[in-house]
Amino acid sequence: MAGNSFGQLFKITTFGESHGVAIGVIVDGCPSNIQVDLEFIQQELDKRKPGQSKITTQRKESDTVQILSGVFEGKTTGTPIAMLIPNEDQKSKDYDHNKDTFRPSHADFTYQSKYGIRDHRGGGRSSARETAARVAAGALAKLFLQQKGIDVVAHVSSVGFIDAPKAEVLDVAKFVTQRESNIVRCADAATAQEMIHLIDTVRKEGDTIGGKVTCFIKNCPVGLGEPVFDKLHADLGKAMLSINAVHGFDYGSGFDGSTMRGSQHNDIFLNDENGKVITRTNYSGGIQGGISNGMDIDFRVAFKPVATIMTNQETVNAAGEAAEIKGKGRHDPCVVPRAVAIVEAMAALVIADHLLRNEVYH
Amino acid sequence: MAGNSFGQLFKITTFGESHGVAIGVIVDGCPSNIQVDLEFIQQELDKRKPGQSKITTQRKESDTVQILSGVFEGKTTGTPIAMLIPNEDQKSKDYDHNKDTFRPSHADFTYQSKYGIRDHRGGGRSSARETAARVAAGALAKLFLQQKGIDVVAHVSSVGFIDAPKAEVLDVAKFVTQRESNIVRCADAATAQEMIHLIDTVRKEGDTIGGKVTCFIKNCPVGLGEPVFDKLHADLGKAMLSINAVHGFDYGSGFDGSTMRGSQHNDIFLNDENGKVITRTNYSGGIQGGISNGMDIDFRVAFKPVATIMTNQETVNAAGEAAEIKGKGRHDPCVVPRAVAIVEAMAALVIADHLLRNEVYH
Amino acid sequence: MAGNSFGQLFKITTFGESHGVAIGVIVDGCPSNIQVDLEFIQQELDKRKPGQSKITTQRKESDTVQILSGVFEGKTTGTPIAMLIPNEDQKSKDYDHNKDTFRPSHADFTYQSKYGIRDHRGGGRSSARETAARVAAGALAKLFLQQKGIDVVAHVSSVGFIDAPKAEVLDVAKFVTQRESNIVRCADAATAQEMIHLIDTVRKEGDTIGGKVTCFIKNCPVGLGEPVFDKLHADLGKAMLSINAVHGFDYGSGFDGSTMRGSQHNDIFLNDENGKVITRTNYSGGIQGGISNGMDIDFRVAFKPVATIMTNQETVNAAGEAAEIKGKGRHDPCVVPRAVAIVEAMAALVIADHLLRNEVYH
Amino acid sequence: MAGNSFGQLFKITTFGESHGVAIGVIVDGCPSNIQVDLEFIQQELDKRKPGQSKITTQRKESDTVQILSGVFEGKTTGTPIAMLIPNEDQKSKDYDHNKDTFRPSHADFTYQSKYGIRDHRGGGRSSARETAARVAAGALAKLFLQQKGIDVVAHVSSVGFIDAPKAEVLDVAKFVTQRESNIVRCADAATAQEMIHLIDTVRKEGDTIGGKVTCFIKNCPVGLGEPVFDKLHADLGKAMLSINAVHGFDYGSGFDGSTMRGSQHNDIFLNDENGKVITRTNYSGGIQGGISNGMDIDFRVAFKPVATIMTNQETVNAAGEAAEIKGKGRHDPCVVPRAVAIVEAMAALVIADHLLRNEVYH
Repeated sequence: MAGNSFGQLFKITTFGESHGVAIGVIVDGCPSNIQVDLEFIQQELDKRKPGQSKITTQRKESDTVQILSGVFEGKTTGTPIAMLIPNEDQKSKDYDHNKDTFRPSHADFTYQSKYGIRDHRGGGRSSARETAARVAAGALAKLFLQQKGIDVVAHVSSVGFIDAPKAEVLDVAKFVTQRESNIVRCADAATAQEMIHLIDTVRKEGDTIGGKVTCFIKNCPVGLGEPVFDKLHADLGKAMLSINAVHGFDYGSGFDGSTMRGSQHNDIFLNDENGKVITRTNYSGGIQGGISNGMDIDFRVAFKPVATIMTNQETVNAAGEAAEIKGKGRHDPCVVPRAVAIVEAMAALVIADHLLRNEVYH
Repeated sequence: MAGNSFGQLFKITTFGESHGVAIGVIVDGCPSNIQVDLEFIQQELDKRKPGQSKITTQRKESDTVQILSGVFEGKTTGTPIAMLIPNEDQKSKDYDHNKDTFRPSHADFTYQSKYGIRDHRGGGRSSARETAARVAAGALAKLFLQQKGIDVVAHVSSVGFIDAPKAEVLDVAKFVTQRESNIVRCADAATAQEMIHLIDTVRKEGDTIGGKVTCFIKNCPVGLGEPVFDKLHADLGKAMLSINAVHGFDYGSGFDGSTMRGSQHNDIFLNDENGKVITRTNYSGGIQGGISNGMDIDFRVAFKPVATIMTNQETVNAAGEAAEIKGKGRHDPCVVPRAVAIVEAMAALVIADHLLRNEVYH
Repeated sequence: MAGNSFGQLFKITTFGESHGVAIGVIVDGCPSNIQVDLEFIQQELDKRKPGQSKITTQRKESDTVQILSGVFEGKTTGTPIAMLIPNEDQKSKDYDHNKDTFRPSHADFTYQSKYGIRDHRGGGRSSARETAARVAAGALAKLFLQQKGIDVVAHVSSVGFIDAPKAEVLDVAKFVTQRESNIVRCADAATAQEMIHLIDTVRKEGDTIGGKVTCFIKNCPVGLGEPVFDKLHADLGKAMLSINAVHGFDYGSGFDGSTMRGSQHNDIFLNDENGKVITRTNYSGGIQGGISNGMDIDFRVAFKPVATIMTNQETVNAAGEAAEIKGKGRHDPCVVPRAVAIVEAMAALVIADHLLRNEVYH
Repeated sequence: MAGNSFGQLFKITTFGESHGVAIGVIVDGCPSNIQVDLEFIQQELDKRKPGQSKITTQRKESDTVQILSGVFEGKTTGTPIAMLIPNEDQKSKDYDHNKDTFRPSHADFTYQSKYGIRDHRGGGRSSARETAARVAAGALAKLFLQQKGIDVVAHVSSVGFIDAPKAEVLDVAKFVTQRESNIVRCADAATAQEMIHLIDTVRKEGDTIGGKVTCFIKNCPVGLGEPVFDKLHADLGKAMLSINAVHGFDYGSGFDGSTMRGSQHNDIFLNDENGKVITRTNYSGGIQGGISNGMDIDFRVAFKPVATIMTNQETVNAAGEAAEIKGKGRHDPCVVPRAVAIVEAMAALVIADHLLRNEVYH
């Protein structure tokens, strides 16, 4: 109810502040007898961790994860899996400047107003650092999905006004290789270079820039999603909108679909060569009536620019007086290269949850 | 868990099929001592009901609501409020054509696959008829919000490629009057005429067209929204994405925000003449860190075109064989004029829920 | 959250007041393709309905149930099943005497204090009339359990100080026949006569008396119950304690178990002739570590005497002044004969819920 | 859903196995600005920890708690509070004897059957060690209740057939002092000596014995508890029944109430000298219609004897063959002296949760 849990059956609860002792997550509801590949979980975390390249924040965190419970002799036991990531870079003095002053477009003002208290160091609980816990949990969800042959894969499709060509994922491994071949995590090599150049320019100016992540879910079985409120895309949308800095979500035909006609948009059903029901087009984005139809699921996530910029800005302080906030803090010129891992993690968690939900009721 | 409930503290559960005996809703968690204006609830339903104008479906339903419980001598008692809307137009024979055949881009195939059974008459549970129950519940939420001085107001901002000029709501009553002065429910009179013309053209062709609804929430207090997963905009997004035919949601700067720089996007804090903290711009859309900051909230909802068109289409049947679906059923050329009421209802429910959630924890 | 829902996956939400238009229930999460035997549901309601015999309340209610949704051509579809029971005996004037006065050991005072308003007619929402909705939902759960071969059966084991001999249920049908052969619903014929005599004496004195119901669950599969908080017996206990007038619950060895030694209480594991693991004794009451072990589950439920008695009593009124409450209202001298149906319904709902919960996680 | 969470608004999720790295708990929903007294939390844990006296288990655990998040400069911030208790005594080899063999009346068989895997070391997740996490969370709840002037206090009222005289708690501090003056934690000194003698005898025989804990909640405000399923005593009952080894719960008049008449059982309302509404008797146990009425709440919890005894017992192994289980493991002759802390913790959690729930809806 206090908002720190996500999922119904494959349920996670995260905890921890940016500059506290540690952050972490409890996964409650992971099926038993899943082989836990700790190295894989760490690799997923490494894609999100700070300091990966010149175009991301330079905070020093190894983001080393420990499993405290729920795994026995390498396998899940059906009991809660607690994972802990100690905070290493705790130079909280760096944040004294925003102790009594509200940083523009950060959560300082709203947290202070809501709770009457806040851990101001690096944004405390509102820091995107919390998403590392999600990535750890999402990695576990991915291990579960792998058993079912389901793939979740995303990449950076836009930075500012630079858009990658519309991607199709025919071979997941190949797509990931292409994406990982550049530091911006765009599967199109040429676009990637433009993006990197733009981010680097923005970085040098002490500024930040927004972008978009596009995600694909392949081999999702028919039947995931619960009508009428817990439609699969509604849960995916909420998952994405819960990620820091996200301002928009659409799936399938998306916002463009609102300009189309029914005769154009309707996805005609066909049988493929194996007798499986498929659709000729996929404007539905793999979901009809809120339930997966077996086609690929695709969606897009829009991230606003990071609020921390390296220039001084006007603001007000806790006393309500005009003040100036210093251009300090960890500079992360563009969040989307690291956000790819978070988008995938949240998508994997939604699919894992709905896989379990679909075990019931029929 | 089965997906028919929405909200945590102001919680609704809907039931009913398109051509069953009745549809309805239980509202569990409405505070006590709210004056219940049945006429107001009926008026809200009238904005969603079919047969309002030439540009909507011609199904005959008065959508008359009855309250079965939870209200005593005109006031809520804190116990569950059950509301019932009998179905009047039950000519289910009209739907024999889709008994064994899957209509393209409808939920026939996914429901049948998920449950192994479905009420095929008019789409059964997957019909947008279910949203009448939401509007009834949303009307109750609005009565609660009125007590707090909070307004939720929406209009049709696009039909196909026709976009209304960006609206600002300075006077809610006036905005609603403008919107209700035309059958497409767009607050800009000139655009409205273009939209109506387009829909009418599409209608005559037996086709359908998509559109967008823009919604504003005014006078929302600071502090609504729960970090980290139940961010206010994440719950608004889920609410909107749970409405039939919705394919996209964004708020504040939205998708456009992903093209911006931080120096441009950051909303500078100021004091207004009364000493209240406001922001100079509002790219945050009234929400920062997932929590309302007291500025107006605004968001957009993209609807795909209705799948029922009046021309025959290829498809497959329940046996998996190629088949043809007849161009029959209720023709609703454009859903957005009626969807305005649904968007407002769901937004009101989210705000009511978070108002109650914000009563706790501090 | 407002307390009118029960269950996680097989979830019910009840609504309605004693003297309102109707009471009812939504069952959300009943699996699809269950054959719905409306006659059976009505029979279950008939066991709970008032006016069955001289020893129960004489309120006139046929308790006729209607199904509004979720059933198509006689089968469940996986969508919410709404059931409605109109109130027929609405002589609410009979309750003017407790409009401003708090009846001792009723919920008048606490509801008024909590909500600042209450429907005083017959106790409003706090009336045991609400349990009819539970029995309807429980009947549906029983239809689901029947498919799995699971039986839930209860009887009256005590009235006042009269205790039936400890029962064993070897043949469920026979046990039910014996129980239904007398109006107090005790499976032991001789004890039943004593009980009836006692209740009749109490009734003539305008008084009421408490009693106990013992319930058995047979053929429950191994594995139901979720550690650590949602132990099967914890959920059964909550279900029973949520029934009006219940003041105690124990299972297996129960309160007596607290006087025993481990060497005596431990249930030794054995193989039966079919190689199935059983236990020699069953002090565990069929549940170990909160999870069913395949042995019969048994528990007991203690009901306090009904608070409505036919003599005047001292009390206070809404103004906080000393007052007298008239010995009026529906006289129900002993609630346990009708409570058998409620206990069975709630037990069936818990088992149905945990059957579904056990579909997941392994 | 997987059962490791408790509470709706003041919500806890526990994790950890008996012989894993650590156990712990996340408290999500603790109000902000509560002063956190770590020493107090540790003292509560010390009342539950093993090795306190000769009559409890001799496992060596300091049960030292660390707070990882949610507390800033000594106060809660409204964000999740994670607490960690490392396991120190991890001699898991001591448990090799029950790796493939099911200990009678333990959860070995049911866990293995449910999950197809189990951490057999010391019972893994089913160990009562998990309750330390509850006590830590309960201590936090107590700090919150202290702000409201609410006291939760329990003592051992029975061991085997030895019953303490019915206690009344006039002075909480004095009651606690009396209770803590003896190792069995019974507030009646003479009975305590008898109990200690009995437990010591049982201990020397390598056997175990059951007992009862009685708990009182004082100064609970009117209005806690949600009709109809989440009655205050139903949630208390579930909380208690979720504690390892508990087989029974009753409150107020309890099981004895089922033998009484209404004329005797009804609690007459009166005004006290301050004009506050009270009742002459308190058979209702401070709860009417599921809602607290301002009188003291009292309830009793029955614990079966601990299953681990120091003699060999017949059983079956994982292969389903007859086997013998060795009389090994940690010998805890009577669990109730330590269970006092657990009962108080769970009661405090229920009251904290309902305090928050009662902030809403009126």
